[in-house]
Amino acid sequence: MSDGIHALLSPRSIAILGASSDFRKISGRPIKHLLDKGYGGRIYPVNPKYERIGELTCYPSVEAIPGDVDLAVVVLPAAAVVPAFVELGRKRVPAAVVFSSGFGETGPEGKELEAELKAAARAAGVRLCGPNCLGLINAFDRMVATFSQYADGEVHAGPIGFVTQSGAFGTAIAALARNRGLGLGYFVNTGNEADVDFVDAMREVIRDPRIKVGCGYIEGLKNGRGLAELATLAMELGKPLVLCKVGRKSAGARAAASHTGSLAGEDAVFNGVVRQLGILRARNEEQMLDLAEVLAYCPPPQGSGVAIATQSGGAGVLMADRAEELGLAIPVLAPETQRQIMATIPGFGVAANPIDVTGQFVAEPAVLRESVLLMLEDPRVHVGVVWLQLMGAHVDLLLGIFDEVKARTALPFVVCWVAAPERAAAELRRRGIACLRGGEPAIEAIAGLVRWAEARRRWLAERQARDAVRLPALALPDGGGVVPSADAARLLGAAGITLAPLELARSADEAVRAAARLGFPVALKIESPDILHRTEAQAVRLGLADAAAVRKAFAEVTANALAYRADARIDGVVVQKMIAGDVEFVLGLKSDPVFGPVLMAGLGGVLVEVLKDVAFRRCPLSAPQADEMLEALQGKAILAGVRGKPAVDRAALVRLICAVSRFGAAAGARLAELDLNPVLLSPAGAVAVDTVLVLEPR
Amino acid sequence: MSDGIHALLSPRSIAILGASSDFRKISGRPIKHLLDKGYGGRIYPVNPKYERIGELTCYPSVEAIPGDVDLAVVVLPAAAVVPAFVELGRKRVPAAVVFSSGFGETGPEGKELEAELKAAARAAGVRLCGPNCLGLINAFDRMVATFSQYADGEVHAGPIGFVTQSGAFGTAIAALARNRGLGLGYFVNTGNEADVDFVDAMREVIRDPRIKVGCGYIEGLKNGRGLAELATLAMELGKPLVLCKVGRKSAGARAAASHTGSLAGEDAVFNGVVRQLGILRARNEEQMLDLAEVLAYCPPPQGSGVAIATQSGGAGVLMADRAEELGLAIPVLAPETQRQIMATIPGFGVAANPIDVTGQFVAEPAVLRESVLLMLEDPRVHVGVVWLQLMGAHVDLLLGIFDEVKARTALPFVVCWVAAPERAAAELRRRGIACLRGGEPAIEAIAGLVRWAEARRRWLAERQARDAVRLPALALPDGGGVVPSADAARLLGAAGITLAPLELARSADEAVRAAARLGFPVALKIESPDILHRTEAQAVRLGLADAAAVRKAFAEVTANALAYRADARIDGVVVQKMIAGDVEFVLGLKSDPVFGPVLMAGLGGVLVEVLKDVAFRRCPLSAPQADEMLEALQGKAILAGVRGKPAVDRAALVRLICAVSRFGAAAGARLAELDLNPVLLSPAGAVAVDTVLVLEPR
Repeated sequence: MSDGIHALLSPRSIAILGASSDFRKISGRPIKHLLDKGYGGRIYPVNPKYERIGELTCYPSVEAIPGDVDLAVVVLPAAAVVPAFVELGRKRVPAAVVFSSGFGETGPEGKELEAELKAAARAAGVRLCGPNCLGLINAFDRMVATFSQYADGEVHAGPIGFVTQSGAFGTAIAALARNRGLGLGYFVNTGNEADVDFVDAMREVIRDPRIKVGCGYIEGLKNGRGLAELATLAMELGKPLVLCKVGRKSAGARAAASHTGSLAGEDAVFNGVVRQLGILRARNEEQMLDLAEVLAYCPPPQGSGVAIATQSGGAGVLMADRAEELGLAIPVLAPETQRQIMATIPGFGVAANPIDVTGQFVAEPAVLRESVLLMLEDPRVHVGVVWLQLMGAHVDLLLGIFDEVKARTALPFVVCWVAAPERAAAELRRRGIACLRGGEPAIEAIAGLVRWAEARRRWLAERQARDAVRLPALALPDGGGVVPSADAARLLGAAGITLAPLELARSADEAVRAAARLGFPVALKIESPDILHRTEAQAVRLGLADAAAVRKAFAEVTANALAYRADARIDGVVVQKMIAGDVEFVLGLKSDPVFGPVLMAGLGGVLVEVLKDVAFRRCPLSAPQADEMLEALQGKAILAGVRGKPAVDRAALVRLICAVSRFGAAAGARLAELDLNPVLLSPAGAVAVDTVLVLEPR
Repeated sequence: MSDGIHALLSPRSIAILGASSDFRKISGRPIKHLLDKGYGGRIYPVNPKYERIGELTCYPSVEAIPGDVDLAVVVLPAAAVVPAFVELGRKRVPAAVVFSSGFGETGPEGKELEAELKAAARAAGVRLCGPNCLGLINAFDRMVATFSQYADGEVHAGPIGFVTQSGAFGTAIAALARNRGLGLGYFVNTGNEADVDFVDAMREVIRDPRIKVGCGYIEGLKNGRGLAELATLAMELGKPLVLCKVGRKSAGARAAASHTGSLAGEDAVFNGVVRQLGILRARNEEQMLDLAEVLAYCPPPQGSGVAIATQSGGAGVLMADRAEELGLAIPVLAPETQRQIMATIPGFGVAANPIDVTGQFVAEPAVLRESVLLMLEDPRVHVGVVWLQLMGAHVDLLLGIFDEVKARTALPFVVCWVAAPERAAAELRRRGIACLRGGEPAIEAIAGLVRWAEARRRWLAERQARDAVRLPALALPDGGGVVPSADAARLLGAAGITLAPLELARSADEAVRAAARLGFPVALKIESPDILHRTEAQAVRLGLADAAAVRKAFAEVTANALAYRADARIDGVVVQKMIAGDVEFVLGLKSDPVFGPVLMAGLGGVLVEVLKDVAFRRCPLSAPQADEMLEALQGKAILAGVRGKPAVDRAALVRLICAVSRFGAAAGARLAELDLNPVLLSPAGAVAVDTVLVLEPR
């Protein structure tokens, strides 16, 4: 089946079903584009109304085409599309792209027709892109099978592959890329994704050795596992993926749901998982292109030290501000480097970092050239950025400087040229040098480059840790619903999750004996499948120091539970050892519609409850991934000890997160929810105190 | 003296001291520009070397000039500048701009020379802009007294006044404004600000009735009071101010300090004060211009409801996401509005909000035009944004649509046109319609517009409250240093600041009697000018319930204090009533080098100590300002009650903040620091429990 997708993107012959001789029409434009752009394969218009379209023979049917057909472009009325796939199957056409609308996007009837189409395509053995899409371009082969406005202009091939779920927005993004002289090797609009989805298309695109970066615009992703596999492939190939996904907020998600009709999944989950997968997420279309440009042109940096050269102190400050906000380092340059730079620039320049080389380089190019080379040689510097403005009269001089810098350094560097003369930016890009339009965008793109390089290093280093992850064998009960505390404790304990020890007691005597075994002080909590909110029912007693207190508490929690709900089934009372801790933490598992079991982690109290300071990751996590996850928390400083408290045992917390994540992965579709709240952290360890485990029935 | 600044920006005659006949030189370029751009006033080159420069008579000295001179452009070597000012004074020239460098920016000697220059200018009665600046432009008068590269192109006049402390960066920003067709009525580079500073220049600029928006680029501000007065003037005139200030972070601040040599003040203070003053702060140069464009072309909206019309669902989602992040509303349109829009757009469009009008408007312009007008008529909508992409073939059709929309609505609306044909954006701006390049920038600019309109409404509404603020008469002791607790309590209490009642006791008996008067339980704290960290010294005892406990505690805290520091002077022990509270709050005053006494407020605990979630305002604050300040806190939800706690008495907290701020304003330069930590909040009120007051000596 993957051959079908290869045929879709690299066809040697194309049939256009419903071809028109009017090249302004949707059904004529692909023919015009294929001819105009110089597509090298065969073009077969199919329409019984015509014998010829321009110079091309037009065929009455697919069957009548003399040679093999790799790709069918279907521009028929919706009702005629399903029958056409039978014909395509007979002709053994491996792939088709369907422009026609009138399917899932129109309502319930359209959804039914789309389901029929999907079945027909599968039965015919034809991979299907669309329906309701603008089509696709393989710019290397001049294969322009689209009616997108983007194709009205030149479609330069280049190292960026672009796959978009939206036609209109995708067209705008492609045009922006062209405006800045970035070549898109591929442009693919997946439309309704009845068969070929975003992940399928991107997988094929990044396999092309000419593609260096995959860019995607996403409105709703269904195939979370597919995205994870795609990310793994991208890491293996060493190619960054940059995604712009809309629907960050509820108003946006509401609009996205009404627009795509698909469940977008929770955005915070998406955010956490793409970070885990080493995928870069762009805020918007411009940032996606900034990232693509820098990633396509720069080698991966070996660290996060950024050196900045400017001819304006203020611009340097602006960039240093943004760099610090994004966790990049702006190292003070070594004294020797500063000395050498000062020997190069005028006395009123600044040689620290940011460097202010002053405007003197217009008269003496070496001022800029040698300063940049010197700063890039400083051992604490891993990426350079050079800020310029205007300089309309000195473009050639500057191009010469950058040619020489590029020839003499192996380090990544980026030019930021505000109000650049048009020729300057285009010429720099032609030389493989990224040219950004402003200081903040430049630093944001560099931050993406640094983050990607870090993620790939981590990915390579973690390979063994990841491969060593073994999922526990879980003896889950067949039924669904809340698992009784003692059973849950056994299941979780067997999976290596550290819990405060507990026993179920059915009488006050049993409770006292249990407390003696566990060791005082203990807590008592009612155990009833009918009472989930035990605190609300006043059916919890904490800090019981002796047998008498346990006896009294047993009577109280039982009475309060029945007072709260007279018909509650009481299974007994849970006796649990009290645990000391300095910091409250929260861990949870839930089943995400896109990514399956995901783990949530956060610091307890106001940070979780008021600021929603939590992070999500897909299960299972390796130890380095768990550690990196903690770094994503705003309140992470608390783990290292604040307000006079000691640092908690971070390694124990990481082990606990990993164990919980393996439990989630092993439970798979059986998992509904696991809540460990609070988990108590101290220098002595990380222990879950209260647990709620809910399963789906087998 | 303000006439001097008027002459600086609107001179009727200009002398160029050190004029050159080489128009490529700094000393020749202003002459060339004044001639080329068609300046209407008199131009007097001054240089004993020439008799003529081009068509102009060149004079050997200022004295030799036959008529009055409003402005002198000084392009002399640094050493010749001070003597020139004597000459200018004799000629009664009211203003001068000094391009020459070699002053404060070069080091200690230059600083001395700059001080001399400042004194010379004052003695001569000449207002001085610079030194070390690129000069200025009044585009209305074609008065181009600059050697900035910006002047190499056309300098269109327009409703935006731009004042920049940086020459190079300011030039780049001005060029960006020109590139997007925004006219700058004024361009002023203030350079070293020996006399005329950013505030002076901007005050003059916004007084011009042709200016609608003031934009400023700032590296370091010295005159905080001046900025506040400028902001008041801007509010009175109804003209927004937009500032881009660098130095948000320490790396940036480090660079800014080394660059400008000026103490930038704490950025968080700047941030808080500009918000209080109703000034918009832009992140970077592009955002400043986005804001300027929207503010210059749009009337102020009456609320924060934004309606979005697109031809791409995804773009609508992206904008809705950003709007929600920025606190804007994306209201679901009224059913009647939706019904009318659905009757206008194709069936597969979406009429909620964002609206997806589909691409159908290319064939039927009414689809877009009427949809936009309908959404703007919805009662919950206050601003509209229309998203477009490319449409190279339909520019005139779209201009026609927007002409009609503009004619038929009084509401502000913005066009966001991704990859717009060049002519489209320029033509829209010519019609007074803002045209932004992307969805996120458009929403960010709209958020600025909404925030500014809100700030102005608040400013108008608060006029009475502000005028009614009366500062307390403080009986401050003459000496500096830490004020003893009981004295501080008297001073603060007299200023209306609610404190937990306390008394100083010099013996255990006195302490017991004080506790009885105050009411048990009480706290005891050592009172010593030598022990500031009383908890560290174990010289605090809390929750003392009876006389015996007080006696015991008195002995303990005294002993512990002396154990901590044997030579500590012990003034006695403070007995303080214990106060109950649900929420810990922190209030403080400090003396900011730029803004004078500023108030800091934040929620206690991890929010202040780990997340630095605090807000700053300039003293004094009105009640509405204090209330708005609380809205700036990330953890503000805590005040409304979370985790089962009731809402605190917000009005009492607001009263306390106001009282503290009045104390700060009244203390003025005498204030070193006031720390109220914690302030305990409950439904019953807001009470400061622990206070440290430090004064500067008189």
